[in-house]
Amino acid sequence: MAIFSRSGVRLWSLLKKTSRLCYASQHTAVDSSQYVTAGCPEPNGPSLQTSVPGPESQRLIQELDKIQNTGSIQFFVDYAKSQGNYIADVDGNVMLDIFTQIASIPIGYNHPNLLDVMSQPENLSTFINRPALAVFPPKDWVQRLKSALLSVAPPGMHQVQTMACGACSIEHGQKAMFITYQRKKRGGMPPSQEELSSCLSNLKPGCPDLTVLSFSGAFHGRTMGALAVTHSKWIHKLDFPTPDWPMATFPKLKYPLHENERENMEIENRSLDEVRDKIEEYNRRGRPVVGCCIEPIQAEGGDNFASPRFFQELQKICKENEVVLLIDEVQTGCGSTGKFWAHEHFNLPESPDIVAFSKKMLTGGFYYKDDLRPKEAFRIFNTWVGDSSKVLLLEAVINTIKEYNLLDNVKDTGKYLKDGLHEMEKKFPHCVSNVRGLGTFCSVDFPDGLFRDNILNKLRSRGVHAGACGDRSMRFRPTLVFQKHHADIFMDAFEKTLQENQ
Amino acid sequence: MAIFSRSGVRLWSLLKKTSRLCYASQHTAVDSSQYVTAGCPEPNGPSLQTSVPGPESQRLIQELDKIQNTGSIQFFVDYAKSQGNYIADVDGNVMLDIFTQIASIPIGYNHPNLLDVMSQPENLSTFINRPALAVFPPKDWVQRLKSALLSVAPPGMHQVQTMACGACSIEHGQKAMFITYQRKKRGGMPPSQEELSSCLSNLKPGCPDLTVLSFSGAFHGRTMGALAVTHSKWIHKLDFPTPDWPMATFPKLKYPLHENERENMEIENRSLDEVRDKIEEYNRRGRPVVGCCIEPIQAEGGDNFASPRFFQELQKICKENEVVLLIDEVQTGCGSTGKFWAHEHFNLPESPDIVAFSKKMLTGGFYYKDDLRPKEAFRIFNTWVGDSSKVLLLEAVINTIKEYNLLDNVKDTGKYLKDGLHEMEKKFPHCVSNVRGLGTFCSVDFPDGLFRDNILNKLRSRGVHAGACGDRSMRFRPTLVFQKHHADIFMDAFEKTLQENQ
Repeated sequence: MAIFSRSGVRLWSLLKKTSRLCYASQHTAVDSSQYVTAGCPEPNGPSLQTSVPGPESQRLIQELDKIQNTGSIQFFVDYAKSQGNYIADVDGNVMLDIFTQIASIPIGYNHPNLLDVMSQPENLSTFINRPALAVFPPKDWVQRLKSALLSVAPPGMHQVQTMACGACSIEHGQKAMFITYQRKKRGGMPPSQEELSSCLSNLKPGCPDLTVLSFSGAFHGRTMGALAVTHSKWIHKLDFPTPDWPMATFPKLKYPLHENERENMEIENRSLDEVRDKIEEYNRRGRPVVGCCIEPIQAEGGDNFASPRFFQELQKICKENEVVLLIDEVQTGCGSTGKFWAHEHFNLPESPDIVAFSKKMLTGGFYYKDDLRPKEAFRIFNTWVGDSSKVLLLEAVINTIKEYNLLDNVKDTGKYLKDGLHEMEKKFPHCVSNVRGLGTFCSVDFPDGLFRDNILNKLRSRGVHAGACGDRSMRFRPTLVFQKHHADIFMDAFEKTLQENQ
Repeated sequence: MAIFSRSGVRLWSLLKKTSRLCYASQHTAVDSSQYVTAGCPEPNGPSLQTSVPGPESQRLIQELDKIQNTGSIQFFVDYAKSQGNYIADVDGNVMLDIFTQIASIPIGYNHPNLLDVMSQPENLSTFINRPALAVFPPKDWVQRLKSALLSVAPPGMHQVQTMACGACSIEHGQKAMFITYQRKKRGGMPPSQEELSSCLSNLKPGCPDLTVLSFSGAFHGRTMGALAVTHSKWIHKLDFPTPDWPMATFPKLKYPLHENERENMEIENRSLDEVRDKIEEYNRRGRPVVGCCIEPIQAEGGDNFASPRFFQELQKICKENEVVLLIDEVQTGCGSTGKFWAHEHFNLPESPDIVAFSKKMLTGGFYYKDDLRPKEAFRIFNTWVGDSSKVLLLEAVINTIKEYNLLDNVKDTGKYLKDGLHEMEKKFPHCVSNVRGLGTFCSVDFPDGLFRDNILNKLRSRGVHAGACGDRSMRFRPTLVFQKHHADIFMDAFEKTLQENQ
């Protein structure tokens, strides 16, 4: 992928600086802006007026609580005033945001290139007339798919399906697995009358007992099919009927990696053996394993990494067993590991069979190999199958990534951030452990969840808004325009917090 | 609901006429506009330049076919040039649209009130900074939920959850059923350690074997949980593993209704008996029926209606058996039956337990009774849980419905349309049968699917773009701004087509 090259910058991004200034000025709400980060004006640092959530957030939480459960609300946000890496709340607090809407803001808040999209009258109809994309696509749809989604497709993948969100991307990716498996099983014959009628009542043979393998600690979404391959926390799973599908243990590596090479290889080998065993067991029980879902880095489950060798071996096992390999890049995709797709770090001999995305990509969806393309219409389908306005915005995101070499930025800042975290690990060995990461997709562990939550609260009172994952981890999910001076702001607040808490 | 009253019109809708003119002029692409329908300029009728799909649509289909299966594509659309009830394709054809993106365009293409939303600089940040709504909601979120979603809530419902689309609204509505059932079963006790750990591996008791009852011919969506209660066509179901959940027969009424009252009552009673039997059977098998999903009118399954008495009895059975009743108003909601929610036609003694919506509502989601509200945070949750920009647009839609008394318009036009269809039924008794409908949510049957498809093609060559449903039905799904003169255009084309084909 040549998405680093400046030569790819399209003329329009230069032509539109004027209209940008006009829109940016309307949105430059924090008057003290001194910095411009990858084209986006930013305040010169966090500034707090109240504790967070402040009184206005608390009032709004009480109001909202009359309408729905608000236990997950952290604070109310003033999105018009948020800029770049800084999130502004309704109490006038401005925080450095390294959680970014659960890792879903690609190039910062109110980036001028996104405001640009809104300033073009010819784009407005895309936002107010939502098409049934698989029946009545807009005239520029093919071009948008090419210039946005296909321009960053994982090597070797030429087919793409848009979807509304991550969970339905996984669900429809699984359906592509099932369709393909049954088509091959029929050996070119059409489905039988019995299949066609029994499927209407959820019965065999029309609804066969196929399974998908997944991993302990995995998170793939919250609808029934996506939830069946999710195993990270009880809060997502308890009380919900779920098919009995095979689960293998995801390797839990020991850090630092270079001191634990042999043990980690053994841990991974045990996991791979379990994958082989589960496939064999479920196949034998007449419940064939037709697919395997895996995150390149388990995020929600605690930022669990495995080695490139692990993924290479997993792909080999899948191929030997005719199991479709789906890599879930919903949280890892779109550049935050320093490559556009995290699985590009694995040097797989060939691309995965399906790559699912959402979050920073703004649209859900999945790439798939030609073999997985359904032969019949309406098999992978719903009313909207995504949203063309999100693909329009994604095109601007991808152009911005190219324009400002943001993958290079992520690599540089990520190294700087990780070096800083290792320093903290040395300085505060009883507090900070297991520093790990690719690009700015980094994380550290604390002694336990309570300790972690306390650190997150203290960081917020210093103007740094970070997120948790797993039992006792803090995850870094900054934007792609997060730079070294932002990392400095974080590290300063982190060090002071650790000094207080050691 | 006082949504008919003009007194509810908010001042801003009057104040913004000026900006409207400015934006409308940019989008008045069909110069011959003579009509203004509910505030929206429209061409004076259909006009065709080529057959549909024309050469440019065909070229684009070929291009798109390199990227995904295109078997479901009908034609490519010029959304900027589409206006009100008229859809413009890429070959310069302008058609009267009574299918409207599978029933998902509420107030016509490019309505000035929607363009207004885009013309306010303070709204732009809502379109480019998508929040994680259940963690970091925008400052106007409570107000938006009140003025948009709660202002049209079904009587007696005060809780609402937004979602991205129809399928995930059903899935999360089902989760609310499961959570509530298990909470009651625990009688106030917390979940056991065994439940908390077993659910992570998809096992009992954490993942109990609960079921949801649904009906033959039903359509509720295409993710695994929504698909488990869907039974309309094999194309949605074949090859996908699906839980064995109970299905009862949906009544297939005989028309005309007034000539078949006794027989229809018997048909409905048999269906109700089956519901009782299935609940009893599955409960006995240790697979308790905790919920029931039903459409007020089965749309995708063939526009199948049942009587208010049927729904009243169904609600009674559900209450007797502590089964949560979910009414799926994804296609029927937002006014097209002449009431805002189709189930309001049923005079239920109390509201359903859950009402799901999407399509014309622009955002997915569901209303639910207080009892179904989860006690814990993160139980009904995902990254985005909907999209605040869609709720912003929905607010403008609802204000427009009020401003132009569009529910009255739907009732008037619907009666006019149905009278016309009855006339066609009399004139062409061998072609047209089973005229039925509420508001403009109407349909007719033809002798078979081939006949129907031929009629739809002929209608299109006369500039009228309609949709199919079921085996041999044509469904009317016009916008809420569809008026008698539009019905005349349809009826004229329909009569000519029938004359040719009788």
